[in-house]
Amino acid sequence: MAEESFYGVTLTAEENTETWDFVDEDYSRGQKLVIKQVLLGAEAKDNEFNVVEVTTGKDSIQIPIAVLKAGETRAVNPDVEFYETKVTFKLIKGSGPVYIHGQTIKDDVEVVDMEEED
Amino acid sequence: MAEESFYGVTLTAEENTETWDFVDEDYSRGQKLVIKQVLLGAEAKDNEFNVVEVTTGKDSIQIPIAVLKAGETRAVNPDVEFYETKVTFKLIKGSGPVYIHGQTIKDDVEVVDMEEED
Amino acid sequence: MAEESFYGVTLTAEENTETWDFVDEDYSRGQKLVIKQVLLGAEAKDNEFNVVEVTTGKDSIQIPIAVLKAGETRAVNPDVEFYETKVTFKLIKGSGPVYIHGQTIKDDVEVVDMEEED
Amino acid sequence: MAEESFYGVTLTAEENTETWDFVDEDYSRGQKLVIKQVLLGAEAKDNEFNVVEVTTGKDSIQIPIAVLKAGETRAVNPDVEFYETKVTFKLIKGSGPVYIHGQTIKDDVEVVDMEEED
Amino acid sequence: MAEESFYGVTLTAEENTETWDFVDEDYSRGQKLVIKQVLLGAEAKDNEFNVVEVTTGKDSIQIPIAVLKAGETRAVNPDVEFYETKVTFKLIKGSGPVYIHGQTIKDDVEVVDMEEED
Ligand SMILES: [Mg+2]
Ligand SMILES: [Mg+2]
Repeated sequence: MAEESFYGVTLTAEENTETWDFVDEDYSRGQKLVIKQVLLGAEAKDNEFNVVEVTTGKDSIQIPIAVLKAGETRAVNPDVEFYETKVTFKLIKGSGPVYIHGQTIKDDVEVVDMEEED
Repeated sequence: MAEESFYGVTLTAEENTETWDFVDEDYSRGQKLVIKQVLLGAEAKDNEFNVVEVTTGKDSIQIPIAVLKAGETRAVNPDVEFYETKVTFKLIKGSGPVYIHGQTIKDDVEVVDMEEED
Repeated sequence: MAEESFYGVTLTAEENTETWDFVDEDYSRGQKLVIKQVLLGAEAKDNEFNVVEVTTGKDSIQIPIAVLKAGETRAVNPDVEFYETKVTFKLIKGSGPVYIHGQTIKDDVEVVDMEEED
Repeated sequence: MAEESFYGVTLTAEENTETWDFVDEDYSRGQKLVIKQVLLGAEAKDNEFNVVEVTTGKDSIQIPIAVLKAGETRAVNPDVEFYETKVTFKLIKGSGPVYIHGQTIKDDVEVVDMEEED
Repeated sequence: MAEESFYGVTLTAEENTETWDFVDEDYSRGQKLVIKQVLLGAEAKDNEFNVVEVTTGKDSIQIPIAVLKAGETRAVNPDVEFYETKVTFKLIKGSGPVYIHGQTIKDDVEVVDMEEED
């Protein structure tokens, strides 16, 4: 069974960047971050777009993953995974608050060890 | 196969807090709570925000997981998991009712026991 | 591999209740009902709330799982599971029609039988 | 690992019916169709309901799985599975176009063959 | 455990086409692309439909998988998979930007090798 933890971070105009990196260097295989929901706070301004951009270490992909706007789109459910890579989330438009929810997972390394001595 | 149960709790202005903790202390590994949906009741007031905040025992994360408002957002689907940690849900804004739905899961501890005597 | 079947029921003002119970008593382990979607029919009245409440046999939980309203919320996706328990769905508000969709699943009982005679 | 293929069909007023049946008769176990999304086309008429009904071979269930309307509900995500059964999709209301998306899956038949000769 | 990478591409009027093909020819089995979300950018024009069409190499299926419009539908979550096939995404209507999110996955080829020498 994989070992996992809840991941929850808040982005605002003042603190608009958050980076996730490999949590455990001794456990080099199978670590990932899964983003399930990006949610706009009740305090968000009317008619203001709030855009969260992601930048990955592996492959250097840079792309918005959430476009939120009060009265139109309160939440999106990207359900994307970042596997064995550093990831940075940045609120590139809007003043938030925006909440990012997901899991960090350390996948099982299946060890099958069968020793038979006759 | 994992053993699981439906999880459903109601938050209102009067009863605005609910805590989930490890159900079975004798079964220490792999217990988790999965939150699939947070739903605003038909009785909710117009134009009132209803916000559910989560606080975790492990890592002490405190963050809203649902922002609901009649006429705009009736339900969100966070699909987040709380693994081997106490979790408290609190209705920090609005009078509800708000319904939280999910599963509690006790994961299988796979026991592979291979004894061979020749 | 699990054995599964599509589950689809319709609730209306006249037939407002539906109960699911263990399908196969001879197969006592691992039977569950998964509810993926609750959908409001095209014939539903404007501005009328349609609320589906669930009652479980195990733990006796009673809670709405869908709040639908034409022009606001046409469908919700609870994605909840009822495992080894009787479940009753009731349209407690509104005249429908409301459609409930999901799966019934009989999980595999893994039988590992290794006999070796030398 | 299961063998799977993308499933995508278009329903219109003129071609309003589509049937899926077991693809491979020689592979009798574990074939299923999963419906992930039903989407209303940009050409759909304003204020017209578009309803997709499903009829199953096994258990003869007949029920709408999508109710779509421009300006209100552009897409639904039923996430339902049809396992070892013929399925017919019919656009019973509206002129479309409506797009149905999912997967066909042939599940693995796990063959564990352990022969030991001493 | 499968090896996976985040997939994120941007379509605009100027660069309206993107093709995904087997990443690794030496690893011929089990490669797929999963599309989780298609999201309309904050810069999209009001009342303009943005439609993303997919064309597959295997079975030559051609069908829209996303119909987006500012003020109505900001994002869809198709959750479809393209398995062992080339796939082309094209923005056939609208000027975007439209963001496509998902994963590329190389499934595990399970190798069970049990050698016993007595
Ligand atoms: Mg799911
Ligand atoms: Mg899913």
